[in-house]
Amino acid sequence: MSQTRKKMHLNVFLLNHGHHEAAWRRTDANPQSSTDIRYFTRLAQIAEKAKFDSLFLADVLSVGKNIRHGSHVGLEPFTLLSALAVVTEHIGLIGTVSTTFNEPFNIARKFASLDHISNGRAGWNIVTSGSEFEAANFSNNEHLQHAKRYERAREFLDVATKLWDSWQDDAIVFDRESGIFADDSKVIAIHHAGHYFHVTGPLNVPRTPQGYPVLVQAGSSEDGKAFAAQYAEAIFTAQQTLLEGQQFYADVKGRVAKFGRNPDSVKILPGICPIIAPTESEAREKEQELNELTVPAYGLNQLRWVTGIDFSSYPLDGPLPELPPVTEINGNKSRYQLIADLVANENLTIRQLIYKLAGGRGHRVFAGTPVQVADQLEEWFEQGASDGFNVMPPYLPGGLEDFAELVVPELQRRGLFRLEYESRTLRGNYGLARPTNGWTPHKEALTT
Amino acid sequence: MSQTRKKMHLNVFLLNHGHHEAAWRRTDANPQSSTDIRYFTRLAQIAEKAKFDSLFLADVLSVGKNIRHGSHVGLEPFTLLSALAVVTEHIGLIGTVSTTFNEPFNIARKFASLDHISNGRAGWNIVTSGSEFEAANFSNNEHLQHAKRYERAREFLDVATKLWDSWQDDAIVFDRESGIFADDSKVIAIHHAGHYFHVTGPLNVPRTPQGYPVLVQAGSSEDGKAFAAQYAEAIFTAQQTLLEGQQFYADVKGRVAKFGRNPDSVKILPGICPIIAPTESEAREKEQELNELTVPAYGLNQLRWVTGIDFSSYPLDGPLPELPPVTEINGNKSRYQLIADLVANENLTIRQLIYKLAGGRGHRVFAGTPVQVADQLEEWFEQGASDGFNVMPPYLPGGLEDFAELVVPELQRRGLFRLEYESRTLRGNYGLARPTNGWTPHKEALTT
Repeated sequence: MSQTRKKMHLNVFLLNHGHHEAAWRRTDANPQSSTDIRYFTRLAQIAEKAKFDSLFLADVLSVGKNIRHGSHVGLEPFTLLSALAVVTEHIGLIGTVSTTFNEPFNIARKFASLDHISNGRAGWNIVTSGSEFEAANFSNNEHLQHAKRYERAREFLDVATKLWDSWQDDAIVFDRESGIFADDSKVIAIHHAGHYFHVTGPLNVPRTPQGYPVLVQAGSSEDGKAFAAQYAEAIFTAQQTLLEGQQFYADVKGRVAKFGRNPDSVKILPGICPIIAPTESEAREKEQELNELTVPAYGLNQLRWVTGIDFSSYPLDGPLPELPPVTEINGNKSRYQLIADLVANENLTIRQLIYKLAGGRGHRVFAGTPVQVADQLEEWFEQGASDGFNVMPPYLPGGLEDFAELVVPELQRRGLFRLEYESRTLRGNYGLARPTNGWTPHKEALTT
Repeated sequence: MSQTRKKMHLNVFLLNHGHHEAAWRRTDANPQSSTDIRYFTRLAQIAEKAKFDSLFLADVLSVGKNIRHGSHVGLEPFTLLSALAVVTEHIGLIGTVSTTFNEPFNIARKFASLDHISNGRAGWNIVTSGSEFEAANFSNNEHLQHAKRYERAREFLDVATKLWDSWQDDAIVFDRESGIFADDSKVIAIHHAGHYFHVTGPLNVPRTPQGYPVLVQAGSSEDGKAFAAQYAEAIFTAQQTLLEGQQFYADVKGRVAKFGRNPDSVKILPGICPIIAPTESEAREKEQELNELTVPAYGLNQLRWVTGIDFSSYPLDGPLPELPPVTEINGNKSRYQLIADLVANENLTIRQLIYKLAGGRGHRVFAGTPVQVADQLEEWFEQGASDGFNVMPPYLPGGLEDFAELVVPELQRRGLFRLEYESRTLRGNYGLARPTNGWTPHKEALTT
């Protein structure tokens, strides 16, 4: 019976030394890891051996102000993904690219190329780049407002989709005899003329194995949820409790339906940072050890980044001052709201808040045995809070190895996770359809 | 004695089915090649086995108007290079990226990442994107004028260099005990405020094995030569005769010296499209067969692209009409001049001009035996016309295999080419120094 249960989807979110901000201070961390392709190859291969649907790389277009104590510098994620494509065979490759600081022709082309190189395993996590530090690296005097960034993102995605659809699947004829390489009635200029972009097209990459990459979104603000409901095929989200998870899940699936889309065509994957040990007390001890390695100055800087408030003049072991309303924030609104809720509900000191955020930056941290972690995942999955999970190992590679070797087999025993990949493509493993080529309004031949 | 001769440098210029525009019509061409990573892996490994210094991928940001008969669509080159980095160990990886349609932060970051992933084998062929078709894919109502494009390229490269230099080699401290990840006095904001760009920096990639990628330039216009003399470390060029090669070589080396640079620090690599067969008559027959596979409509379109003139109403076997002066051209000026010279000197018909350009698009095509090809290369190398060559196989993989298996051993016997790689980095194999970190005017710490 267990083999017929609905299966969950698992993504691993790779981040240099791991998701806990003090992971790099563990004795097993390696100074070279963050720029070492062999290290990332090893991580990808561990995840693939465990049959993860996909791996995911986040991105920030600046070092921020935290370089003294923070380890989030290293390889540009898209460049890294392309390298990982040739040392893996099945695992999906999801890269973060900003619609605010790029051109749609370049990005549509890069994802089409990655989809070819990986044989249909590309995914795009669409972000709008919320920080002033990023804007300052891109000649932007004024950082584009939150709502405008989403407006640009919509048009960006519209252009990208038209470009991916600008080649019919059978456009390449390759008729040596007649000298016809492509049927130019099947390679169509898009003539996009919008508010942000004017793009003639067509793309210079033939249509790809997946048609286009799996579209992923991680914004949980109102703008973000509306965008995700309309376009996303997978959603990474941060929810702390089962109830919040259920509410978010129901909310987004309802919004998806309102756009006339099948709610099953969007996979919701809450983040979890699992701290795994043979016994619960060892797991908690491991969590405490990691928390105690955090550098308060780093946590204070992170808090200032998200909230806009400098807490460094307040006592670390005292309460937080009052926070401004979320409407005044032009950064990551949903992350800000989550922090405000945490503070309100749990009456935390500044240090406790720093510890709370150190593991998952607002994502749920759970310390326990492999069976307890599996119980948690099963509960959320069975009780309408998720279609799977975005697994964020607190340290790497150990935290991923623990999950792969101890939690995945437990999920498989319960019939909740695949024993073998179902498909060669990311769409296939996520149970998503290959998009039909929908955009061919101009039946204009290219040769004029 | 032969082992002590000065050695030439060899780059292979990979282009889907090969450089002859009819290569895809050969019976051994494969329709899938242009998007098949296994195919490009095979090409890279053939070149690496033969000890080529580097492989190079060109780029055009549009399909142009030639998709019906032309095969130049496929993978985005930078994405492809990153994949090739992990299936090769020694060969340099030179990618073309436009300074006109990108942001310097993104590109500096990508090349730094590729340099890490490849362990010091990245090279950047800097182009300014000369065609209106490209501009139409990037929301440009008016295509930037030739001189303005070079002005932007200079500032782009200035920003990129500052970003690469924004990390000192020893900036990462990784002191687990004290919690200091990086010495923030060695990670410096660049505060670039120029005409085209405002970039605060620093880069979010630590300094790379080569410091920065080998800088390559291929423009041979006045603007292009001036830019190359000031910045380039390797130059790809198209010269038809030994005399032209010598003149270009002397001209550029002289300009390099005027910038206070050592002329040896710039490697000049003329292109050659070698058509190789056991006897000279077989080689000429092979060339003729390829030429006869060209589609006149394709050649006419290419000519129109470069010259701005539609020759299709003139008889193919008649003479060319008069060409406008080069000053009226806003595209590839040097390619245009080369065509004008060919027409003036050789009194060609339109069909003969199409054949002449079909193999190397203005680069020198030479049909002969392996010994004859080696003789040609030796002559140019010894007589002051080159530091090596940009090898452009007419068809792939066969044309590259012939060069690797027949011409390279002949060059090695003559002591003109390496038997083993001298270095693990592209700079090392090209005999170029690792740049010192020159740009640290603001000794401003990052944490404020």
